[in-house]
Amino acid sequence: MGRRLFKELERSYGFDEVAIVPGQVTINPELTSTKMTIGDLEFEIPIMASAMDGAVSPRFAARMHELGGLAVLNGEGLYSRYDDPYSVLEDIIATPQAEVTEFLQQVYSEPVKDHLMAAQVQEIKNSGATCAISFTPQSTKRMSPIAVEAGADMIVVQSTVTTARHMSNSYRGLIFSELIESIKVPVMVGNCVTYDVALELMETGIDGVLVGVGPGAACTTREVVGVGVPQVTATLECAAAREDYYKSTGRYVAVITDGGIRTGGDICKSIVSGADGVMLGTPFAQAEEAPGRGYNWGMANPHPELPRGTRVKVGTKGSLGQILYGPTSVTDGTQNFVAALKVGMGMCGAYSIRDLHQAEMIIAPAMKTEGKFLQLGG
Amino acid sequence: MGRRLFKELERSYGFDEVAIVPGQVTINPELTSTKMTIGDLEFEIPIMASAMDGAVSPRFAARMHELGGLAVLNGEGLYSRYDDPYSVLEDIIATPQAEVTEFLQQVYSEPVKDHLMAAQVQEIKNSGATCAISFTPQSTKRMSPIAVEAGADMIVVQSTVTTARHMSNSYRGLIFSELIESIKVPVMVGNCVTYDVALELMETGIDGVLVGVGPGAACTTREVVGVGVPQVTATLECAAAREDYYKSTGRYVAVITDGGIRTGGDICKSIVSGADGVMLGTPFAQAEEAPGRGYNWGMANPHPELPRGTRVKVGTKGSLGQILYGPTSVTDGTQNFVAALKVGMGMCGAYSIRDLHQAEMIIAPAMKTEGKFLQLGG
Amino acid sequence: MGRRLFKELERSYGFDEVAIVPGQVTINPELTSTKMTIGDLEFEIPIMASAMDGAVSPRFAARMHELGGLAVLNGEGLYSRYDDPYSVLEDIIATPQAEVTEFLQQVYSEPVKDHLMAAQVQEIKNSGATCAISFTPQSTKRMSPIAVEAGADMIVVQSTVTTARHMSNSYRGLIFSELIESIKVPVMVGNCVTYDVALELMETGIDGVLVGVGPGAACTTREVVGVGVPQVTATLECAAAREDYYKSTGRYVAVITDGGIRTGGDICKSIVSGADGVMLGTPFAQAEEAPGRGYNWGMANPHPELPRGTRVKVGTKGSLGQILYGPTSVTDGTQNFVAALKVGMGMCGAYSIRDLHQAEMIIAPAMKTEGKFLQLGG
Amino acid sequence: MGRRLFKELERSYGFDEVAIVPGQVTINPELTSTKMTIGDLEFEIPIMASAMDGAVSPRFAARMHELGGLAVLNGEGLYSRYDDPYSVLEDIIATPQAEVTEFLQQVYSEPVKDHLMAAQVQEIKNSGATCAISFTPQSTKRMSPIAVEAGADMIVVQSTVTTARHMSNSYRGLIFSELIESIKVPVMVGNCVTYDVALELMETGIDGVLVGVGPGAACTTREVVGVGVPQVTATLECAAAREDYYKSTGRYVAVITDGGIRTGGDICKSIVSGADGVMLGTPFAQAEEAPGRGYNWGMANPHPELPRGTRVKVGTKGSLGQILYGPTSVTDGTQNFVAALKVGMGMCGAYSIRDLHQAEMIIAPAMKTEGKFLQLGG
Repeated sequence: MGRRLFKELERSYGFDEVAIVPGQVTINPELTSTKMTIGDLEFEIPIMASAMDGAVSPRFAARMHELGGLAVLNGEGLYSRYDDPYSVLEDIIATPQAEVTEFLQQVYSEPVKDHLMAAQVQEIKNSGATCAISFTPQSTKRMSPIAVEAGADMIVVQSTVTTARHMSNSYRGLIFSELIESIKVPVMVGNCVTYDVALELMETGIDGVLVGVGPGAACTTREVVGVGVPQVTATLECAAAREDYYKSTGRYVAVITDGGIRTGGDICKSIVSGADGVMLGTPFAQAEEAPGRGYNWGMANPHPELPRGTRVKVGTKGSLGQILYGPTSVTDGTQNFVAALKVGMGMCGAYSIRDLHQAEMIIAPAMKTEGKFLQLGG
Repeated sequence: MGRRLFKELERSYGFDEVAIVPGQVTINPELTSTKMTIGDLEFEIPIMASAMDGAVSPRFAARMHELGGLAVLNGEGLYSRYDDPYSVLEDIIATPQAEVTEFLQQVYSEPVKDHLMAAQVQEIKNSGATCAISFTPQSTKRMSPIAVEAGADMIVVQSTVTTARHMSNSYRGLIFSELIESIKVPVMVGNCVTYDVALELMETGIDGVLVGVGPGAACTTREVVGVGVPQVTATLECAAAREDYYKSTGRYVAVITDGGIRTGGDICKSIVSGADGVMLGTPFAQAEEAPGRGYNWGMANPHPELPRGTRVKVGTKGSLGQILYGPTSVTDGTQNFVAALKVGMGMCGAYSIRDLHQAEMIIAPAMKTEGKFLQLGG
Repeated sequence: MGRRLFKELERSYGFDEVAIVPGQVTINPELTSTKMTIGDLEFEIPIMASAMDGAVSPRFAARMHELGGLAVLNGEGLYSRYDDPYSVLEDIIATPQAEVTEFLQQVYSEPVKDHLMAAQVQEIKNSGATCAISFTPQSTKRMSPIAVEAGADMIVVQSTVTTARHMSNSYRGLIFSELIESIKVPVMVGNCVTYDVALELMETGIDGVLVGVGPGAACTTREVVGVGVPQVTATLECAAAREDYYKSTGRYVAVITDGGIRTGGDICKSIVSGADGVMLGTPFAQAEEAPGRGYNWGMANPHPELPRGTRVKVGTKGSLGQILYGPTSVTDGTQNFVAALKVGMGMCGAYSIRDLHQAEMIIAPAMKTEGKFLQLGG
Repeated sequence: MGRRLFKELERSYGFDEVAIVPGQVTINPELTSTKMTIGDLEFEIPIMASAMDGAVSPRFAARMHELGGLAVLNGEGLYSRYDDPYSVLEDIIATPQAEVTEFLQQVYSEPVKDHLMAAQVQEIKNSGATCAISFTPQSTKRMSPIAVEAGADMIVVQSTVTTARHMSNSYRGLIFSELIESIKVPVMVGNCVTYDVALELMETGIDGVLVGVGPGAACTTREVVGVGVPQVTATLECAAAREDYYKSTGRYVAVITDGGIRTGGDICKSIVSGADGVMLGTPFAQAEEAPGRGYNWGMANPHPELPRGTRVKVGTKGSLGQILYGPTSVTDGTQNFVAALKVGMGMCGAYSIRDLHQAEMIIAPAMKTEGKFLQLGG
């Protein structure tokens, strides 16, 4: 007797549950190109650093640019709240764990100042780097024009869950189509995880979507609220929206997988799932250049309804250069991301990121077994 | 060659195997209403405390009422057996673990006294709270009129597995339709886990069903007897029965998920599965107001055929107010349940509990990954 | 692109992956009957003790009979090899772990003596108990008539994998139909795990099949050879064969699930899977009456091709009476098996074992959650 | 509402997720033949040792031949780079773990010398053994004729992922059909994991394919790059290609499962998946005869793009004879492989390896349970 259920459930998948199938043709890694395009901006590598105060400072953004990627500055973070954010960083790092949550809440209760935010944008521009800055939907309308005025090359509108339509009585919902018209730089919006929301966001005219809500079992989102979609399935959905939108309009919107990525394998899986690029937090907070000096904490927008995240010790693993390009003696995939991506592209016979979209992937739960040696055949 | 099997097996799911998919529209939490209705009774929050002596005393019930929820008193517990139940509680708490099982058996061999039960009902009523009291099917017929006479607002008939038809030679099976006629307050019955039993119970005229048999791997039920259905599937089935019954009769019967709920995420998942409310035990036994003062033990009805449960140390985690509404520094979802529910409703664009029934859910096994920060977008 | 595979694989299930669904009608446990019939023999409870020297001695068999079950004596074990097997048992128990494997090989190299085997049969008969004795297929033809002559009530032909057709050049394969004709007592054969083999065995005229090859991940069978079928699926297949065979011939052959059973829940699941009874080893080796005094080791037939199992310390958990009927303070389901079975039957509304065959079962992986209290409703 | 996904994912399986179903007929192990044929070469057992310097030396290859199997020498390993490879082995073994990775990189930067490689081939031939030697695709064209000239009986072309078509600008891709024509000994190529690549390789005229990319969760391949297919599915695909190719051409190409094999059970599962033989690394590095003396490390081809594997202590478990034929007291399946295979064949009624291809296999996740004793019935 079949069960009679109130609704049907479909299976979803995360990074640890899938594996990429080698292609029918292989190419040497040196033949591959990892270029990523968002709006009219092009980047050498499809890797972004997420807007966390412990990971991205203006100086970090400059270094990330030199290495071919893009770091997003948190437009509502410490750098926009304090004249001397670095001394505040010192204080956060020095605070005992027991007191740090309250200290963070106090630190972030300091109001954001537009002129400080603008100054950070200018510092990044002065370094010669592309400047991407993020705001919450509530602040975007007011602050993004100021950021663009100051020279920002990209606006990132980000919250845990963002839709094209949001109801609120505390402020009028942000209308993305109006935003696009008012500012002349590429706009990325996130986070979303479904075909319908991604498509609706693309139809507002934005240039990229950030994919990821509670990837894996992210404590607050998955544990506290029960909401979340594993990244492989979330990316497969948003990429499907991009393809359909591209077919019907000829406009290509970038899909960026954001969150839950720990290894080069996760990066390759994100792209095979359809992503045009990835955004990482913790791995960059572990860089020697990270302002958090081995510590990381959540984004800055205080949330009265639920307990805030706290400061986490992530440690310092190596220079940003090593994390992206090696050399490294780490063999667990947490460093040398670009080489891993190029080797993966070679195994799949992919000359470009969009070629890698065509690779096949299977469901293959991680299992323990003897290690093996990597050689790319030829 | 296909296998030839004696019967087919279908897959079922528990809280840890699913996740909620954000909606296409989001709303701010302050716009949401968490009201729950059972029969003609309405509650501010859809959260009930289960009838365990270590969790619910008359005083606890009063406090739960002040906070908008409903606590069920065990009508056959210590409070109905002893003139001074609080000294007995002290003794249970003070007994060494090695001797506590026998001590509990002895304590609960003291007969239930109707006048003590009635006095507890009156104490709850005098506090101004709604009074819900539970009985086992064997005692319901005799005791529930006395409880109603004393002022009880709701009768809960509860045992591990309850059906509309039960065969016994020790007593005549309880006829729910007769019970409904004889008493004029809402009646809830449980526990059940399937469409057919839930529907048959609803057809007797009851106002609510409690869902849950051996949720997860509850030792006695799942381990000892092998019987049990994970809560997501059990709720999906009983909710389907409610919908079909509502369509054919216009009468709406509340479905309450009871057992196995540990986090705000579990509460949200229960409701997305179709529940109108949830019932929790351990989380409330961990409240400062709980009479068990950090200890909890099973319901009071001794069961000669199988070993009884014993006293478990659950610890005291915070005030009932914090557990329901925060503030709290706990980030694992075990406190601040109402805020978690409202944020989850906001992410799904649900103004009401019944709106949340429409949210989508996917199968997404829990996986380790980096924590993330919760912001509700706009 | 669909994969192109050399063969298809189907999913199978073990005890830990399923749960029983409560029935639409419930009955009180005291109304249930647990009777089991094999051939013309009837037993009060459907529980057998497997032919392991550390578990079943003639004295143990006598006690098992008093308690309503059936213990099978290993016809090629110590009791058939030594005039004083008890002193040999002492030696096995006293041997240091490091030397015990070789010692066991030496002990079991002592030849089997027909007169000793016959004497054991007579001892069991003299105690008034039903006598079941097991032989390997190689020895059955010669030894079973001697055992029957001595009074054996049932012959069990057992090896890891037994089929109706076996090819060998060391001896002529056993023809079960000839065996059935030559001896006039019920014959059980095992072990098998598939519909086809079970059906073919039933067609030879035997009275029962033992189900189970490498249940769970039994080291030698599953690890060393990779062969095995989890018990739920294996039982579902063999029970399907029994039903088809019964429909076409009117003769009912008992299906006994043998191996991998640890709890009362596993017993209930075996029967819901279609078993008419169960056979347990380790749980009985843990009885105070077990000759192994807390130690257990594999059956006696030395196997030159592969390493033998060795002596395992299983400990002594309680009397045989407690293990079957309680009372017990153990709450993990490893004792009080009969009460667990009766409560499970009550929850499924089953008056008899064959009624319990009709219960529903679902796939429900074991999950951690709060314990709960067992009450059978009314 | 069904999800809309960018691509579909299919499930794949590894050794730990499947189990072999016993056959309808069983035979005694002594009736089984384990012969394997590759091209015009025949071997007593279908077991190969992989080309790892810590496992296979010329002396090891000679011993492997005596025992009926085939060891492949790494044609670009230490033995082809140094006049006295054994002293280099001593140095590798003696180097502290902290320094060994750099030391290995330095050791393997010594160029390969054709005359040393040829001398190793001659040493193996002089011992009377069959000589198989492996090269990377880059070196095959130049070195394989030299090896054949020196007496090599088989050429193995191996890299992590090998296809019939490889694009490179550093060297002209290897054309296997030309290779086959130019040398007159059997050629094996690997590694591959899909039907299409295996078929395309077979069409070039090679005599065998090696199956396995990142089996299980091999760190470098699965973790770093995310590429890999579990061995059961990979073998099922390549065996399907062999069957189709055989049907259309009448030529039978050997399929060898390479990597992730730890137990006799894994060997049986590989063959039931369609393999004609298996290739093992670590289990042979654990032999007393292994040159690594309890240490093992990856193949020799340095890979600049990604961190190299390092030296792993695998320990010494017994003689090569014991590992293949016992006797052994190890009961976890990691020794006595041939007996395990023969017993498995007996349980499936398989007289030959190709008979074992016909056995049935099911999906059966490994589960803990009581050990059991192995007896082959009949």
